[in-house]
Amino acid sequence: MLHSEELQKNPKLYIFLPLYYTLWMDSVLTPTEISEMQKLIDRQLWLSKPEKMWLLDKLDPSKGPDPKELKSWKKKIKSIELNHLHGLSHIGAALVKQQDEDIIIEESIHRDLQEAEEALGLLSREAGYTFKSGHQTITTEHNEDRSFNTQKMTEVLDGDQANLIKKVKAVISDPTFAYREFDNLPDQREQVLQWCQDLAKQGFGAWAFPEYAKGKNDMKGYFTIMETLSYHDLSLVIKFGVQFGLWGMSVYFLGSEKHHQKYLKDIGSLKLPGCFAMTETGHGSNVRGLETTATYDHTQKTFTIHTPNPDARKEYIGNAAVHGQKATVFAKLIIDGEDYGVNAFVVPLRSEDGKLVEGVRIEDCGRKMGLNGVDNGVIYFDNVIIPKEDMLDKFAAVNGQGEFESPINSDNRRFFTMLGTLVGGRIGIPRSALSASKTGLTIAIRHAEKRKQFGPEGGEEVPILNYRLHQRRLMPPLATSYALHFALRYLTQRFLDRKEEEAQEIEALAAGLKAYSTWFTTATLQECREACGGKGYLSENRIDDLKNDTDVYTTFEGDNVVLMQLVAKNRLTEFKQEFGNMNMFTIFNFITAQAKTSIVEKNPITVRNTDSAHLLDFGFHLNAFVYREKAILSSAAQRLKKHIDEGMDSFDATNVAQHHLQNVAQAYIERVVLEQFQKAVEETTDEGCKSALKQLCQLYALFTLEKNRGWYLEQGYMEGVKTKAIRKEVNQLCWEVRKNAMALTNAFDIPENCIAAPIAMKD
Amino acid sequence: MLHSEELQKNPKLYIFLPLYYTLWMDSVLTPTEISEMQKLIDRQLWLSKPEKMWLLDKLDPSKGPDPKELKSWKKKIKSIELNHLHGLSHIGAALVKQQDEDIIIEESIHRDLQEAEEALGLLSREAGYTFKSGHQTITTEHNEDRSFNTQKMTEVLDGDQANLIKKVKAVISDPTFAYREFDNLPDQREQVLQWCQDLAKQGFGAWAFPEYAKGKNDMKGYFTIMETLSYHDLSLVIKFGVQFGLWGMSVYFLGSEKHHQKYLKDIGSLKLPGCFAMTETGHGSNVRGLETTATYDHTQKTFTIHTPNPDARKEYIGNAAVHGQKATVFAKLIIDGEDYGVNAFVVPLRSEDGKLVEGVRIEDCGRKMGLNGVDNGVIYFDNVIIPKEDMLDKFAAVNGQGEFESPINSDNRRFFTMLGTLVGGRIGIPRSALSASKTGLTIAIRHAEKRKQFGPEGGEEVPILNYRLHQRRLMPPLATSYALHFALRYLTQRFLDRKEEEAQEIEALAAGLKAYSTWFTTATLQECREACGGKGYLSENRIDDLKNDTDVYTTFEGDNVVLMQLVAKNRLTEFKQEFGNMNMFTIFNFITAQAKTSIVEKNPITVRNTDSAHLLDFGFHLNAFVYREKAILSSAAQRLKKHIDEGMDSFDATNVAQHHLQNVAQAYIERVVLEQFQKAVEETTDEGCKSALKQLCQLYALFTLEKNRGWYLEQGYMEGVKTKAIRKEVNQLCWEVRKNAMALTNAFDIPENCIAAPIAMKD
Repeated sequence: MLHSEELQKNPKLYIFLPLYYTLWMDSVLTPTEISEMQKLIDRQLWLSKPEKMWLLDKLDPSKGPDPKELKSWKKKIKSIELNHLHGLSHIGAALVKQQDEDIIIEESIHRDLQEAEEALGLLSREAGYTFKSGHQTITTEHNEDRSFNTQKMTEVLDGDQANLIKKVKAVISDPTFAYREFDNLPDQREQVLQWCQDLAKQGFGAWAFPEYAKGKNDMKGYFTIMETLSYHDLSLVIKFGVQFGLWGMSVYFLGSEKHHQKYLKDIGSLKLPGCFAMTETGHGSNVRGLETTATYDHTQKTFTIHTPNPDARKEYIGNAAVHGQKATVFAKLIIDGEDYGVNAFVVPLRSEDGKLVEGVRIEDCGRKMGLNGVDNGVIYFDNVIIPKEDMLDKFAAVNGQGEFESPINSDNRRFFTMLGTLVGGRIGIPRSALSASKTGLTIAIRHAEKRKQFGPEGGEEVPILNYRLHQRRLMPPLATSYALHFALRYLTQRFLDRKEEEAQEIEALAAGLKAYSTWFTTATLQECREACGGKGYLSENRIDDLKNDTDVYTTFEGDNVVLMQLVAKNRLTEFKQEFGNMNMFTIFNFITAQAKTSIVEKNPITVRNTDSAHLLDFGFHLNAFVYREKAILSSAAQRLKKHIDEGMDSFDATNVAQHHLQNVAQAYIERVVLEQFQKAVEETTDEGCKSALKQLCQLYALFTLEKNRGWYLEQGYMEGVKTKAIRKEVNQLCWEVRKNAMALTNAFDIPENCIAAPIAMKD
Repeated sequence: MLHSEELQKNPKLYIFLPLYYTLWMDSVLTPTEISEMQKLIDRQLWLSKPEKMWLLDKLDPSKGPDPKELKSWKKKIKSIELNHLHGLSHIGAALVKQQDEDIIIEESIHRDLQEAEEALGLLSREAGYTFKSGHQTITTEHNEDRSFNTQKMTEVLDGDQANLIKKVKAVISDPTFAYREFDNLPDQREQVLQWCQDLAKQGFGAWAFPEYAKGKNDMKGYFTIMETLSYHDLSLVIKFGVQFGLWGMSVYFLGSEKHHQKYLKDIGSLKLPGCFAMTETGHGSNVRGLETTATYDHTQKTFTIHTPNPDARKEYIGNAAVHGQKATVFAKLIIDGEDYGVNAFVVPLRSEDGKLVEGVRIEDCGRKMGLNGVDNGVIYFDNVIIPKEDMLDKFAAVNGQGEFESPINSDNRRFFTMLGTLVGGRIGIPRSALSASKTGLTIAIRHAEKRKQFGPEGGEEVPILNYRLHQRRLMPPLATSYALHFALRYLTQRFLDRKEEEAQEIEALAAGLKAYSTWFTTATLQECREACGGKGYLSENRIDDLKNDTDVYTTFEGDNVVLMQLVAKNRLTEFKQEFGNMNMFTIFNFITAQAKTSIVEKNPITVRNTDSAHLLDFGFHLNAFVYREKAILSSAAQRLKKHIDEGMDSFDATNVAQHHLQNVAQAYIERVVLEQFQKAVEETTDEGCKSALKQLCQLYALFTLEKNRGWYLEQGYMEGVKTKAIRKEVNQLCWEVRKNAMALTNAFDIPENCIAAPIAMKD
């Protein structure tokens, strides 16, 4: 088989074969490698001169083995029965023995060969795998191995909403809700309307409304419906939210009994499709500056709704382009030339047969990045007259004498109070976003479990979920999605139970969680897309729609960046109030002193404690989060104060501190999320679920600490040894959580027909 | 006007009006605030009992001012001529004087009022703006103020390719290239084919080919064309790249003269549309594992191309679903039952009239997240027979005796050498990605310059580009896009000038820059989308397409995560070779010692040097980048060695270190990018351009250091004071660069019809 004369003459030369094969296998020999080999050959006194020549020739690219010869070497070597794994020189020795039992290989030869291998940077033992069939490694053998009962986990997640969730899932699993590919916008919009009508018919639209409007008076259920529908098509969810949430709730919360009686039933049944017309082209975030006017005419007892300039047109209004018949329009109320700030009015857009009302002009927003099943439009009003009773008058009204009346004296404050009642949107959206993340993670994790690529030399290919970087891409988001699940459940409950004095805190919490959750969704779906490679790019695998439909979640219901600034401002105010009537100077000094000295964790031992038990400890996590929250808040306050003291305009000072303020908001939200996750873990009774959740909670905490490590190091709260140990712990937790990954996504219990991605189908 | 009896009786009470108005303006009074006010009132001995009662009543929500009264207060206060800005008590005093010149306000009253304001947390001076018209701030007044000649900058960017760039821009500005909305996939695919044909007709397709194929023999120009076309539709670019780059170059670089003569002319003219069929369903990243077979039949002198199992079908193949007539197919060559590894063959798919060749089955990949103008397909081969001469035989051939011949003995190495010749794809793609980023940034920055939202109390709204956070979103990417421009120009030149011994280094550089640039594009376009708010979500504003079309850039031409691992492995190998035949142990020790001691910057003074001149110094930047690159590389090498020494399988060890290895690659690429940017700055002769570029280079450097600050702090290379100072410097640079932002995007000189977004149109 090996025709080389030299090998036949002196079978002892076979000892070089595995090494030579390995050297030629993957790369051209470098001059260094050749000289290293020359040294080795020179040292072998048992070689004859022709043998040395032959061996040297075989290192020369022009005289080295041709492809066929190289293959024959490999076959020869593989013919040796390798029970155990050996180094290259031992495989070579076995080859020699195979030729001639009696040849003795001196120990010094082995030593010389091993030294050469080392100098060449070869891992002799590893290289041996090339010649062995099968190569098991820890990475190969790692796999799914769930530690809890999936159904029990679903129960933990669903809580008291389990029945309603099942009911909604049953509906969206019906064949009429099967996904379709749409040829054009009108087709897609009609399908989504049809789906909304189906949902309305089954009573889901009116769920939060009073019983006389065929509702269940169940706001909590409304959020559950939004969240569960979000496993299905997101255009449907947004259309649903526009109709029953924005349009319906604005009438419900801003109107009085007469409006409820007049409209809610038809809104809930979708007999009366409507819009929520707040945003204007010129004013999106700064809604206080809306310019549409509603001028009161006391002789006629009417309001005239008017768009005074093109920038004041209503824009991106859902349901406006095609289906909407009425709209809640936000406009500045003008009485006798006096501006009473922004108020809400019910304004007709179209008749029942779809004809536009006189004075209303509507343009279609056209194709969008996503949510193309929602017909967004632009609305212009040209002196549209509505009756006096169509002012939504819960917070302000025009009395019989044509005078303005309101329990809230400041126009600003009245407007923000009105907006406050609509904070539900900032709960529904993050909950919808979270469902989209859960679907994306389910798809990406199932794919990563099935998809195999690369593997150890001579071994089988490995599921990509066994790769550490792939785990790092998907496990922290999986942990965070659990964390957010509990945080959003908490937010919802706070909102439902709210007392007046908590309103501002809850608004800030909703704003912050909305921003944090929707950014999380954008980032997670991006990661899922990339983690699924080319398959993730095909529309059939659904990440396309999930990503594009949710992309605007970071913008609507309040631009995330603006919301985070609002949260920070709320925190600064709370901070001030917490200290009652202490002078602001005193507060700053007090807080700073406290931050500097009273935090027990910041002692020389703790800052470099890398003990695993300590790093995994809930107490350590929460303390670190709370410390960050407080310290950033107080430093932001100090910084603002310093700038202002130095004569800077407060608007400029706030601008200079914007980045700092964003961190104030983020640290606050992260603390709340961790706190609620820890609480949920502690309240879980099933042991299997509890310990799986605990691990996820640890991963969320440590991953977040790792993300913020720059700040902790700057503060001296941790030293480098500790942040490095945290990184290692995160890697280890990812490796561990990976075993539960499939089960943790299965516990979301997303209907298979909603997941729908071919790459994620269960075999 | 103010009907209150008390005010009429004692005009001195007017002094409270501005304070009262301010308190009621934005919030409900808290108990603390009320008690603070009570204390203030109590101290005013000049007040009568009824006056005190009246003042206290006006703090009570049920007796406080109604909306109309509040408005009348404001009008009253605004009637005062406020030339300078005053505190609230001084405005109050002016009101008193307006009523009665003779009333004296004692200094003690001012003092008491100011104390109360302070205790209430009011910024008296700021509150005064409510009553003043106009309020100028630094934030308001900041604006565009370019410091260089835009045209000169375009010349710096275009370099010696300026003429070709102009030529391509002229073509894509032609009305036949106007963007269209497509009703369906076939329509879009035909338009893109048509555009490609137009380009081919004008000679752009054959640009890199020899003259006999109607080419210009200009590879550099080919990249310029790809990059410039990327300002237009990206489906067009990818279709163009598939035809002339992948299909054309594979024939050019893997075939021999006979193939060039036979095919190149028809490829360049697009008479012969073709595919590059490498990826299989089962093997994307791990292409070494491809399973398609090409079995040689010496009696017939043919190869039989076959898909042995469904996972071996070719997938995502561009041009395959509809237009491709031939394909370069990568398949394992089998001769006499012996596997000679993956080689390339020209295989027919369709006849000229579009009929599928017998044995070829093609499925359409259908709708994708983006690039829907490219017809990707799946190909199955059922024993398709091709003549012997259609094996692309530059690196391997079957000789007249039916024997395999190749100058490269190892199958693996031969395959990777073949792949190496195709590295051009990893240059074209990041350059295309960068163009898309430039377009996105142009749109977002123009929008941010025009869009105004919020402003100081009583002042005008401010362009959102004046907000610090908005600058932080857009200025670092702008700086990075310039940085990458020069880095990719450098990569291209290295590739064009490459010598054989540099091949691996250049392949690693291309892989790393491909990953780094395409991730940058994904992140940047996401930021641009969000920065444009709802407008960014409308398809007409183009970020939709830019984002969705480029999303797969992180996956194709090599998955970014896998590429970064390859780069890291290359770095480890280079690291080994750099030290010649030093023993690996010795190298690790040497490097560690060097990293620990010889870096002069790591001295106690430098680690906390926050001097601005130092922070902006090019030398400091590059040293810090080089230090990081070397230290991470050596620690990764040490870590791998340690694991292996402890008996860990090398496959497992590499897996454990994946995250670390990704940082090795990133640190390497960032150093190269900075180095090339600094070089480009130094080589710029025009002073205006040079200083603008210098500032961008400083921003790129400091932003990157800030991003990596966790690592620098862990290493003790910097202390917290220094990383904080860097953050501040980044903010300041963003603020400064903002002035040049419009000009810096105008210097990209993207044709207006390609930008096309209504929000970005010049007025």
